[in-house]
Amino acid sequence: MTDLTQAGGDALAKSHDQAKARYGDIRGRNLALDMTRGKPSAAQLDLSDALLTNVTAEDVRDDDGTDLRNYGGLAGTPACRKLFGDYLGVPADQVVIGGNSSLQMMYGVLARAMTFGVVGGKGPWRDEGATVICPVPGYDRHFAICEELGLDMVSVDMKDDGPDMDAVEELVKDPKVKAIWCVPKYSNPTGATYSDAVVDRLATMKAAAPDFRILWDNAYAVHHLGQGLDEVADILTVCEKAGCPDRPFIFGSTSKITYAGAGIAVFAGSKANVKDALDHLFFETIGPDKITQLRQVKFFKDMDGILAHMDGHAELCAPKFKAVDDALTKHLAGKGIATWTRPKGGYFVSLDVLDGCAKEVIRLAGEAGVKLTPAGSCFPYGKDPNDRNIRLAPTLPPLEEVVQAMEVVCACVELACLNKLAADAA
Amino acid sequence: MTDLTQAGGDALAKSHDQAKARYGDIRGRNLALDMTRGKPSAAQLDLSDALLTNVTAEDVRDDDGTDLRNYGGLAGTPACRKLFGDYLGVPADQVVIGGNSSLQMMYGVLARAMTFGVVGGKGPWRDEGATVICPVPGYDRHFAICEELGLDMVSVDMKDDGPDMDAVEELVKDPKVKAIWCVPKYSNPTGATYSDAVVDRLATMKAAAPDFRILWDNAYAVHHLGQGLDEVADILTVCEKAGCPDRPFIFGSTSKITYAGAGIAVFAGSKANVKDALDHLFFETIGPDKITQLRQVKFFKDMDGILAHMDGHAELCAPKFKAVDDALTKHLAGKGIATWTRPKGGYFVSLDVLDGCAKEVIRLAGEAGVKLTPAGSCFPYGKDPNDRNIRLAPTLPPLEEVVQAMEVVCACVELACLNKLAADAA
Repeated sequence: MTDLTQAGGDALAKSHDQAKARYGDIRGRNLALDMTRGKPSAAQLDLSDALLTNVTAEDVRDDDGTDLRNYGGLAGTPACRKLFGDYLGVPADQVVIGGNSSLQMMYGVLARAMTFGVVGGKGPWRDEGATVICPVPGYDRHFAICEELGLDMVSVDMKDDGPDMDAVEELVKDPKVKAIWCVPKYSNPTGATYSDAVVDRLATMKAAAPDFRILWDNAYAVHHLGQGLDEVADILTVCEKAGCPDRPFIFGSTSKITYAGAGIAVFAGSKANVKDALDHLFFETIGPDKITQLRQVKFFKDMDGILAHMDGHAELCAPKFKAVDDALTKHLAGKGIATWTRPKGGYFVSLDVLDGCAKEVIRLAGEAGVKLTPAGSCFPYGKDPNDRNIRLAPTLPPLEEVVQAMEVVCACVELACLNKLAADAA
Repeated sequence: MTDLTQAGGDALAKSHDQAKARYGDIRGRNLALDMTRGKPSAAQLDLSDALLTNVTAEDVRDDDGTDLRNYGGLAGTPACRKLFGDYLGVPADQVVIGGNSSLQMMYGVLARAMTFGVVGGKGPWRDEGATVICPVPGYDRHFAICEELGLDMVSVDMKDDGPDMDAVEELVKDPKVKAIWCVPKYSNPTGATYSDAVVDRLATMKAAAPDFRILWDNAYAVHHLGQGLDEVADILTVCEKAGCPDRPFIFGSTSKITYAGAGIAVFAGSKANVKDALDHLFFETIGPDKITQLRQVKFFKDMDGILAHMDGHAELCAPKFKAVDDALTKHLAGKGIATWTRPKGGYFVSLDVLDGCAKEVIRLAGEAGVKLTPAGSCFPYGKDPNDRNIRLAPTLPPLEEVVQAMEVVCACVELACLNKLAADAA
């Protein structure tokens, strides 16, 4: 195809007219589609419906006699800590099971860091001022927590193998830089998986803050798309070997494994970090829901059970990701106005369009009945400095809706970019 | 019986010898009993076992089409908000459903008050310094939250009809006094229920802090012992009428209705308070577990369902409370060394012994194989200024164990008090 950014006046005008006509046609279809949310589809949730009734009154006593219906168990049940220790690659006694939301555990960890400080630190982060490194594009909810709690944010670029480590290593020379957000596998939204070299640099880099933390949100640890599972180095072991065992705070959840709103979340780290977390959590709650924990453990039995279950998700999700890539390739490849990721897992495709055009693409799509994630939402404070990034979330809608929506997205990308090119040429 | 505090030398010596002999006999029994925890018994939990399997794949869509297995619903499902609005006597849209722990909601409310402030205030409480009024004896976990978050505590006496309001009205003249803990019905541990006059004074008193809050932990709203349900005035309406609708923060949970570790918690208040809570909760979580909410709603259907269910709890708990009172009456009535409450609901009996003897009673009971709640635990910072209060929790052990344990408790009270009287007389 023609690279539109290199097209001459007549060719450009012709393409522009075609793009306007196509958009006009699409607007006439009166669509109402939604590609905004990284939510599992109903068919994915159906895979876990056995959870609803898999625990009966026969099962409510744990091996050690604990009545799982009653109070207690601040760190979670032994069986659940074991299973999700295996899941995160950490010993069971370095795992804390939470409620239904890993976001809540991340908020809690950072709220406590601000109010009380962390192991190895000098006291409350809010007294020192604290800045968090945010690889971009990244996860909006991570950035929102920082904004709510008054943690400053500084962006670094996300590359194909993880964050730009040269930039990170420079930033951590400032003792106020206290943490970095990481989604190490099938990152939100680019789908990138951290290389061993990046993980090694995160663990071995000299941070001026003695209490620097890697916020390791392993949200998509097993969420492949059928081409095999990416491997990520075990952050806890790598940090232990580097002499900074307390550096990583590890998070995970079953939200995109079983039920998105009714599973369990998990926090893990060094023994000192886990003890500190539990010492504070004691004041917040008697303990998380142990019946929900039992449901998950009975449903999976072990790590092999989780892996087998995820193959079912891959079967449902892969065709939708293929539809996204097929449409982008068909309509936009070679035109010089867009690049996008081809993730092997996770929940998103990250689409970059010509600088200054993302907001307009999203506006045009909205007018044509396709909701996209607001522009800038993958950046701190909701501001994409280049106004070029668009996050596509294909898992929730049925396949035929993904196909329809992507035709709209492609038409809007073409029109918005041609509007800009035409204006620039004029 | 003889009032031992008035007994002469010989009578006192004789009683003292008898008490020593009885305690010696009891220590020889090698008991291992636990009266420390306000937990429901296994038989009580059995009443709710239908919860385990009462939701099937047929039920997972709400009336409005929401898939309850997926993300969302920050404030809870409409049906659950309605039911627990009825439970707390507030409109559904002034209810926020939480996870499995009302303690966590209380911690959250106070943590946010310290960090962000509350509606009608001047900013973060931690900037102004904040003191919480604590009626004593009271609930240890309330006081622990204050200690953790750096809220100062000041005690007032708990009377038969609620806190000593003369003292409260005096304290709230200080603008740093920002809140009061209240367990308005079958209070922990005395079992007292607030009179209408007390509730009215709480609502109408002039507080120097414009953002003063009543922390209304209605933990035992329906937890009677078979003699009918106490009524407490509706704090939200009373405060609305008094012109301070934002004053009450209301809490409740199903922890002692269905499962203690696997039910739902609830927060309620004015529309402004609920909006403020949700505006902040947005940053903490996508929403609480909606399947658990559905289980509760299907199980009870409506408020009548809750009330009928609680009659079953009363049947199981009442004989244990009777055993406590029978033992105390038989062994200690008229002796001048102990007074105790006769609650009509809730989870505790509050026992006061001679000043300076509570710790020793608890130590003696421990040596004889009966664990009691540590002395002072019903007071801020764990310090009972008179060392006289003991909290008895009879619900968890089987009835025969309550009977055995109470014989030990009574023998220990008598011995500890006679040790003191003998020492005083010497």
